[in-house]
Amino acid sequence: MPEVQMEEVRRFMKECLEATGVPGTEATEHAALLLQADCTGHYSHGLNRLEFYVKDLETGATNPKGEPRILKETAATAWVDGGDGLGATVGNFCMDLAIKKAKESGIGWVAAKGSNHFGMAGWWAQRAEKSGYIGMAFTNSSPLLVPTRSKDGALGTNPIAMAAPASGGDSILVDMSSSAVAMGKVEVKIHEGKPLPPGWAMGPDGKMTHDPQVAFDSGRLYPLGGVEETSGYKGYCLSAMNEVFCSSLSGAKASHQRPWDETRPGEHPNLGQVFVAIDPGCFAPGFGERLADCLQHWRNLPPVDPSLPVLAPRRDKERQHAEETRNRWENRLRT
Amino acid sequence: MPEVQMEEVRRFMKECLEATGVPGTEATEHAALLLQADCTGHYSHGLNRLEFYVKDLETGATNPKGEPRILKETAATAWVDGGDGLGATVGNFCMDLAIKKAKESGIGWVAAKGSNHFGMAGWWAQRAEKSGYIGMAFTNSSPLLVPTRSKDGALGTNPIAMAAPASGGDSILVDMSSSAVAMGKVEVKIHEGKPLPPGWAMGPDGKMTHDPQVAFDSGRLYPLGGVEETSGYKGYCLSAMNEVFCSSLSGAKASHQRPWDETRPGEHPNLGQVFVAIDPGCFAPGFGERLADCLQHWRNLPPVDPSLPVLAPRRDKERQHAEETRNRWENRLRT
Repeated sequence: MPEVQMEEVRRFMKECLEATGVPGTEATEHAALLLQADCTGHYSHGLNRLEFYVKDLETGATNPKGEPRILKETAATAWVDGGDGLGATVGNFCMDLAIKKAKESGIGWVAAKGSNHFGMAGWWAQRAEKSGYIGMAFTNSSPLLVPTRSKDGALGTNPIAMAAPASGGDSILVDMSSSAVAMGKVEVKIHEGKPLPPGWAMGPDGKMTHDPQVAFDSGRLYPLGGVEETSGYKGYCLSAMNEVFCSSLSGAKASHQRPWDETRPGEHPNLGQVFVAIDPGCFAPGFGERLADCLQHWRNLPPVDPSLPVLAPRRDKERQHAEETRNRWENRLRT
Repeated sequence: MPEVQMEEVRRFMKECLEATGVPGTEATEHAALLLQADCTGHYSHGLNRLEFYVKDLETGATNPKGEPRILKETAATAWVDGGDGLGATVGNFCMDLAIKKAKESGIGWVAAKGSNHFGMAGWWAQRAEKSGYIGMAFTNSSPLLVPTRSKDGALGTNPIAMAAPASGGDSILVDMSSSAVAMGKVEVKIHEGKPLPPGWAMGPDGKMTHDPQVAFDSGRLYPLGGVEETSGYKGYCLSAMNEVFCSSLSGAKASHQRPWDETRPGEHPNLGQVFVAIDPGCFAPGFGERLADCLQHWRNLPPVDPSLPVLAPRRDKERQHAEETRNRWENRLRT
């Protein structure tokens, strides 16, 4: 596969977004979000998604000039209308607001309606982490996740993300969908021609399927944990918790109120999202040291397979991938 | 098995706690917490645990007269020292403080160190829910959970609980450990003489075991999701997130700093816990109605097996169990 330079991908994405009427600053922000996904190995949330964003901008589902505004607020909370703007536009506005409130009150909890797909949830949690705060981000989505005992999907793959800074430049990042896997992983199995592991997906007959194409066409993912016997109801619970935050609290559409594949003509996605920042300085001194100790303890655990060391959530894997990507590009520039 | 009356169990638990020096009001609160666990079918967190609480009170690991106090606070946050008091004593103090802060600031986030086992995490989330708030509760625990790729345990079964009030008297309750199952479920399989489902537990050799006795003796539970292929790293991430809140933030002992079976002589458990209350009134109007709509939508989904209807998290199952328990006792009183 021919390789392209990172800055070339960035320019391309920015210009595609600008061509639909997105202002330059906002296009730059959204391109940075997508590029980071590719660099850290989350291809389902990078360049791969550009077409989808552009399409929603062209049909008016996403408003290229949509501006978020605060509808209600306290010193520690805010309810925001995203104005159907681009995910990065709403995300930057809301997380910066949460950080500002955390600075003043110890915590900021911001719920937005009228948003669009905001890429990797972890990106937003990391925005707070980079400012020295614990960050959290939640979003609802389309009804791909099948609640335990149900034959049909009703909840989103509703991710939970949390990031926090540790001493010595270390950090933790949690960024996980509440389904067993994201649909992107099923697509990878189609391309590889490999069967699905147990507990990933359900066929249209309500039974577990190992055929990735059947799973993709069916659009039914098991919650984290898989079937009921292996505690799939816990993934269902996580997704439901996310829904309480993202739609019940914000007034956005619930996951079951939207189609799973694309926005209906003339409708806004009206996704709901929550952004949280917490100031560790308002609690016990030594937060960063204690977190760094945990991260090192986990990394140093004896592995089952010596060739597969234990990783700290999830930064280790992403760092590894980001380094590989950078090296590959740098080598290419040299040759 | 002979049945005993509910009030008789309550009296027995209260008097056992009082005999160790716990004041009457605190003993009453702790007994109520344990009784509720038994009534809703969570036997691992009820009367079954009384011996363990009494032992910790007798050895001084738990201070029968321990009183929580605020070490640092803002309008929306507080850092609390639980004073090594009984779980119910610390929980009541912290959740009431979180609710008070939510009333004033929209949200209250309280982190406590120096606490003890606080029973079902869901009990605390429901304390906020019953006052009209979204409630959340987290606790760390002993290192029974094996991080992905590790051969040894390092994290607690660290539960996450969330409860919220819906219109028409309905509500949602999420209360789940971040391991595939709690050790109590492994014990049930020992009594039943049945093998463990895949992804529950690891033997001392680092391999999955289906033998419940081997699993119990090994003390190694897989995270929610099971092995790496079925996304067990997500359960590991959830448990790690919990650790950030409960020990990094509060200054309590991390899960890996304690033994899994019991407190070492002369030491306090020093558990860390987080209590959160959020006022839905600070966000979009109609919270309760939107949540009730979600709950009903999920209950009405077509089930795979018509004899097993889809349940709303987790209230439905508990309500069912509580009714059965009540009916059984009432019938017994009549005969």
